[in-house]
Amino acid sequence: MREHGGNLDQAQQRFGGCGEDWIDLSTGINRLPYPVGEIDSHSWSALPSRSEIETLHQAAQHAYGTSAPVVAIGGAQAAIQLLPRLAPPGRARILAPTYNEYAAVLSDAGWDVEDVRDLDALAGADLAIVVNPNNPDGRCHEPEDLLALQSRVGRLVIDESFADAVPHLSLASEAERPELLILRSFGKFYGLAGLRLGFALGNATDIATLAAMSGPWPISGAAIAIGCRALLDDAWATATSARLARDGVRLDAMVQSQGWRLVGGTPLFRLYETGDALDAQEKLARSQIWSRVFTKKPTWLRLGLPGIESEWTRLAEVLVR
Amino acid sequence: MREHGGNLDQAQQRFGGCGEDWIDLSTGINRLPYPVGEIDSHSWSALPSRSEIETLHQAAQHAYGTSAPVVAIGGAQAAIQLLPRLAPPGRARILAPTYNEYAAVLSDAGWDVEDVRDLDALAGADLAIVVNPNNPDGRCHEPEDLLALQSRVGRLVIDESFADAVPHLSLASEAERPELLILRSFGKFYGLAGLRLGFALGNATDIATLAAMSGPWPISGAAIAIGCRALLDDAWATATSARLARDGVRLDAMVQSQGWRLVGGTPLFRLYETGDALDAQEKLARSQIWSRVFTKKPTWLRLGLPGIESEWTRLAEVLVR
Repeated sequence: MREHGGNLDQAQQRFGGCGEDWIDLSTGINRLPYPVGEIDSHSWSALPSRSEIETLHQAAQHAYGTSAPVVAIGGAQAAIQLLPRLAPPGRARILAPTYNEYAAVLSDAGWDVEDVRDLDALAGADLAIVVNPNNPDGRCHEPEDLLALQSRVGRLVIDESFADAVPHLSLASEAERPELLILRSFGKFYGLAGLRLGFALGNATDIATLAAMSGPWPISGAAIAIGCRALLDDAWATATSARLARDGVRLDAMVQSQGWRLVGGTPLFRLYETGDALDAQEKLARSQIWSRVFTKKPTWLRLGLPGIESEWTRLAEVLVR
Repeated sequence: MREHGGNLDQAQQRFGGCGEDWIDLSTGINRLPYPVGEIDSHSWSALPSRSEIETLHQAAQHAYGTSAPVVAIGGAQAAIQLLPRLAPPGRARILAPTYNEYAAVLSDAGWDVEDVRDLDALAGADLAIVVNPNNPDGRCHEPEDLLALQSRVGRLVIDESFADAVPHLSLASEAERPELLILRSFGKFYGLAGLRLGFALGNATDIATLAAMSGPWPISGAAIAIGCRALLDDAWATATSARLARDGVRLDAMVQSQGWRLVGGTPLFRLYETGDALDAQEKLARSQIWSRVFTKKPTWLRLGLPGIESEWTRLAEVLVR
């Protein structure tokens, strides 16, 4: 398995403690999740029906502000697994550094993969990947700059896994354009990554192809039930976006004492330049707070936002040590 | 979408009623499911960890009586979606009639697909598919006959989606053989199809390939939590197998009044030869009992087993009309 956050089992092996002892800030998953509520027995026992899945698709269109065709999948990762097969292997260019699964999955499937450093350098690719806002450095691109790029590549995939709280950056409303494909994660903003739910938004042909590749029942009944409720809950989304924005500022202020410099971030995580990220990770881990380091960037430490107040207190206590 | 059971939304459109009014016997899903119990918040919010998935794999090995490598996937269907890519397209032969997704998925992926009527005719195929016991007719094959076939085909896939209650038919213990791949469904026997959980058992190479194609988090936290409990619960499995065996006999007896002839079945469903299956389906549907018909076999009606006693009573009342 490739290097990812959320690997709390490795943290426990190295530093002890059981799962509940740890505050896992190694991911960009909102630690104050959408309330799961009741799941009725039908959602557990029955195969998801066409009409239930269609209702979920409509809820996703509402949340993402689009009328473009949509398909629900088992997390944005499930779409990444299918991406290499939307077209015969060719030249893929990825705006890097970014989420490491893109390069790995595409190159395993025979694509010629090149990391590039700016939008312009994506031009000419058969498949161009932009994560907006980007993971892990929070780099953002304006929708019009991405649209200008669209005609210069074969297919432009915009991964908006961290866009929920910054909807002005989203191209979801334009997803139906022939060369565009938008990926959305449900689990990060709604804090329910274990549910395995995400969406692809795009033109009818691409969405039909992805749906056929995913099969008739790609997501669980619980994902449909919870997803429908959450994606229609505008009040929760608005309040959560506001809270995350405040909490990002709070975290940046809190880590200043360490001399860490903010590289960037999204409302769901912050990336800091530290002197030695492994050292910083270990300091936090000795108090059962897990963070994300990057082998290729030994000074980068990524922190998700603490959730309940006691988590902020624990983090503050570790940082003053 | 291809013709499947579980399409209760279509039944409601045609015959009215809301979901709870219906007894859905159109699938082979156990209507007395394994108790879901409590799902802890961690299962909803966190990405499944490697060690949690590994624990589930061990529970599956226990339940299926094997030490062969295993990978958890989003239902047996998820494995079917990946099957065409385990090898370059070649000649696939399917022991037919059977579950219609095999022929469709393989042929969409460029395989040359041939339906055959007996085991011997599978010989020479690059990929041979046997559903054992078979859906919808319950046809069974002895493990030794399947093993004898194994050296005569490139890869032999045994779909054991309905084998939980007839473990003596299972080849799970032999799954590590180089040409063998076993698919298991969790949702049918445990009555939790909405959970989307299944397993592939096979040699290390095939299982690693399927795992790579499925990505790092192919199943939900709830599937892991419930799957681990259920697959280790031998007492529940034993009692359920015994109950299903009794109930199959009970259903066969109950429909005798209709002049239907048993074609075959498994402990999870029965297939009857009727004069006119659409007519029989409609008779049941007018009382909100849904059944499965087959376009290509207009006299076949498949019925799952009723669950609680009131469902048996309702079915009995319809049948005497």
